[in-house]
Amino acid sequence: MSSVPAALDAELADLLGAGWRSDAAALAAHAGDGSRRTAMPLGVATPADRGQVAALVRACRRHRVAVVARGSATSSTGAALAGGAVAVSFARMARIREIRADDRVAVVEPGVRNGALQRALAAHGLFWPPDPASADDCTIGGNLACNAGGPHTVKYGASRDNVLGLVAVTGTGDLVTVGSATTKDATGYDLTHLIVGSEGTLALIVEATLKLAPVPAARASLRALYDDATAAAAAVARIMAQPATPAMLEFMDAASIRLAREVGGAKIAEAGALLLIEADGDAATLPHVLDALERAARGPGLRALERAADDAASARLWAARKALSHAQRAIAPAKLNEDVVVPVSRIPELVAGIEALAREFDIPIVAFGHAGNGNLHANILYDPDDTGQDARARAALPRLFALTLALGGTLSGEHGIGTAKREFMRDAFDAPTLAAMRAVKAALDPDGILNPGKVLPEP
Amino acid sequence: MSSVPAALDAELADLLGAGWRSDAAALAAHAGDGSRRTAMPLGVATPADRGQVAALVRACRRHRVAVVARGSATSSTGAALAGGAVAVSFARMARIREIRADDRVAVVEPGVRNGALQRALAAHGLFWPPDPASADDCTIGGNLACNAGGPHTVKYGASRDNVLGLVAVTGTGDLVTVGSATTKDATGYDLTHLIVGSEGTLALIVEATLKLAPVPAARASLRALYDDATAAAAAVARIMAQPATPAMLEFMDAASIRLAREVGGAKIAEAGALLLIEADGDAATLPHVLDALERAARGPGLRALERAADDAASARLWAARKALSHAQRAIAPAKLNEDVVVPVSRIPELVAGIEALAREFDIPIVAFGHAGNGNLHANILYDPDDTGQDARARAALPRLFALTLALGGTLSGEHGIGTAKREFMRDAFDAPTLAAMRAVKAALDPDGILNPGKVLPEP
Ligand SMILES: Cc1cc2nc3c(=O)[nH]c(=O)nc-3n(C[C@H](O)[C@H](O)[C@H](O)COP(=O)(O)OP(=O)(O)OC[C@H]3O[C@@H](n4cnc5c(N)ncnc54)[C@H](O)[C@@H]3O)c2cc1C
Ligand SMILES: Cc1cc2nc3c(=O)[nH]c(=O)nc-3n(C[C@H](O)[C@H](O)[C@H](O)COP(=O)(O)OP(=O)(O)OC[C@H]3O[C@@H](n4cnc5c(N)ncnc54)[C@H](O)[C@@H]3O)c2cc1C
Repeated sequence: MSSVPAALDAELADLLGAGWRSDAAALAAHAGDGSRRTAMPLGVATPADRGQVAALVRACRRHRVAVVARGSATSSTGAALAGGAVAVSFARMARIREIRADDRVAVVEPGVRNGALQRALAAHGLFWPPDPASADDCTIGGNLACNAGGPHTVKYGASRDNVLGLVAVTGTGDLVTVGSATTKDATGYDLTHLIVGSEGTLALIVEATLKLAPVPAARASLRALYDDATAAAAAVARIMAQPATPAMLEFMDAASIRLAREVGGAKIAEAGALLLIEADGDAATLPHVLDALERAARGPGLRALERAADDAASARLWAARKALSHAQRAIAPAKLNEDVVVPVSRIPELVAGIEALAREFDIPIVAFGHAGNGNLHANILYDPDDTGQDARARAALPRLFALTLALGGTLSGEHGIGTAKREFMRDAFDAPTLAAMRAVKAALDPDGILNPGKVLPEP
Repeated sequence: MSSVPAALDAELADLLGAGWRSDAAALAAHAGDGSRRTAMPLGVATPADRGQVAALVRACRRHRVAVVARGSATSSTGAALAGGAVAVSFARMARIREIRADDRVAVVEPGVRNGALQRALAAHGLFWPPDPASADDCTIGGNLACNAGGPHTVKYGASRDNVLGLVAVTGTGDLVTVGSATTKDATGYDLTHLIVGSEGTLALIVEATLKLAPVPAARASLRALYDDATAAAAAVARIMAQPATPAMLEFMDAASIRLAREVGGAKIAEAGALLLIEADGDAATLPHVLDALERAARGPGLRALERAADDAASARLWAARKALSHAQRAIAPAKLNEDVVVPVSRIPELVAGIEALAREFDIPIVAFGHAGNGNLHANILYDPDDTGQDARARAALPRLFALTLALGGTLSGEHGIGTAKREFMRDAFDAPTLAAMRAVKAALDPDGILNPGKVLPEP
């Protein structure tokens, strides 16, 4: 099907006015996402309020036409691709409705960008913890739908941990109001956290009540170099086993360090593994927290430890991590950017396994990321125009997932599943568990119109 | 129906051997719960492993006989009552399978008691944060099924916040494995947190992977007396708006203070409201954290502030709160023990509203509890043998819930809904939201055999 049924077209034009377009320019503008693939939607709906969202879902349901929510389309998994569907843009539902500092709560529409929200909250001394690298672009709706996270997740939690309630439109076009604006809730079924991370397949989020945290007065960091990933992972376990939780705890493997030094120009000694450790707090406690983290970071296999007491010094320590993004692009035009997770104690085996895969498939793979959560970005670097390399990169991928699952881990820590990883869901979950997920999908979206073909594999 | 169908009886005897009983003694021993009501089960199954749980659910499903999980039956809402159903006791599934200190994870069977787990974890310097007052009795399965919490929830979260994965048997008798042993997860639908808090109506939990926290090296506390609830609530908001999160933040209203002083014999000055504030950390940071909390606690309406630098001094400060339980029993043989939640900024209105209800219904109501989460225990004290008082207590209850909901709060913060509050679910959620909850129930329990009559009201 390449266009909306005429009757639905008329209904949506009537409902949405200028908020309904199916001209080529509108379709093309909503065809891609961060996965760099494209798929043409049938039309683009830009509702102005929740009532319009509910009405458009009901209309699409009557015509059995699929509906795909789109925030800023930064998803790297193809989750936002709306091929053959009505794309729903939340660009006009981008208001911050309320910031209630005393309750540490913000009520927002889904189209608010993460970065814009953080700027508004800063005036109140508050922030919303999820801090994806894409924060300036991506929306709160997209963050919640993917359970996005970032380096601060180790202390403050990911999107799912920082939402109290939602208003959402299910696949029946019903508006549901779930959760509450309180930090404790034992009232009925927790549909809030179920909808979070469901990638627009269970409901469209039209309002979110977010849990906020106070901005710490000060930050400081440590950079520790180790002989190898085993020594670094042991340090991660020691750090996480004492009460001074780090605000960030980032890891770089030997390949990442080499790349940051040799291509990115980072000023950093050679090492088998590196940890970047951030502490936050107030001026009085911060030095003690940093002491506690330093004590835990010290141990067998430590080569060097640098301390940055202020923001400028911290920025210098973090430069190596930042250099990595550029350096990757310099050596390979494309990457398969995975975000696998393993229990912290299994990091050394994951890193060793990734090194073995890089050798076996003769392709660079760098591993770095959110060590405190065991969530490593394993980037398989390749040139898509080199067919041999392209094939080897794609062949290495299932092995990476098999390794991760064998270590008791899971496919994704923050990017989600989309279309890219949905076939691997069969390896992550057994048949009865997938059947239970499908049953829940059918309960909230009986006709399967919400973002079909994403997350769950075909039965 | 007052006995199990003969065919099912034979099947269960065959499956469970001595783990299947329907003698009067067994039935009577599994008839009550913490709500002080009783209802006779048809029989008592005590499975030894998850396979037996799955098989017994399948057998009961074939015969359309209801199944009710029971931990230690301390539920105060009637959630564990198994009238007309097969009661499933987890007494034989009470093993701690693994404690993996490096991953801060424990894998347990559902029948493990909370207190027993804490003792086992202490040897590793770890604890599981949910700390209900019933910890010595209640089970992890019951904690998860009710989303139990306690005073430490303000810093460490409730049961839902401290579980990573579950193995559970749904109403179809299928074993599902959800979540992962990692602290970050964006892989598929979050059935873990959906099953938590569902009070045994969606699935029976047969194994849980719990998230652990490191035991802090030291604790210290503050006790602050205020002119009134408004001044105390403003202090709560100030405390929660700065980065030094208290480990506990407990509130007592004027009626609670009076009761603790006059009946409980607590040594404490007269005041309109009281906060008990605990800090935890290591020896170096703790004094600074306490300083930060003290600064935040100070403000208009503060009458007195005492500081307890060690455990013994802390125990003296907490004595007033402890005296309350005894004092309540001394003045009234029964109580309706509710655990309503409101946004922190609405605590003064909640307390004022409760005082007004106590006057209007001429019945003592004390309010105290977990102020950092806005979660107050509102105990309506009465004598069930005094029919007038009994009627007034029951008449005040719906007004308490209406007040809570009008303030943007929710019915329960930790006790759950059970049978006691299920009719009030109609006030807490609109019809489409209840319909979505029912659809999810039908998805996981298509024949409605798991703990029927609990949580959700009839359509
Ligand atoms: C440069 C770059 C860096 C990144 N860094 C990170 C990172 O550090 N951490 C991280 O977690 N992710 C990261 N990502 C991935 C991506 O930014 C996040 O997943 C983000 O949350 C997506 O938000 P979005 O608004 O772009 O959503 P989209 O890409 O538009 O949509 C993503 C999914 O959410 C659904 N959705 C969107 N809005 C709604 C709604 N209102 N209701 C229901 N469903 C909805 C869509 O249907 C789709 O399934 C990065 C991406 C890029 C390109
Ligand atoms: C003196 C006292 C103090 C209390 N203090 C607190 C407190 O501070 N905080 C608090 O939150 N609660 C408190 N409670 C309430 C109660 O202790 C908690 O709800 C506790 O979590 C119940 O655990 P249990 O093992 O007794 O479960 P039960 O009472 O046996 O069952 C409770 C519910 O859980 C279900 N269930 C039990 N096991 C499973 C399983 N394996 N799978 C699926 N469902 C299951 C049951 O079907 C039932 O719906 C208190 C109760 C008492 C009597």
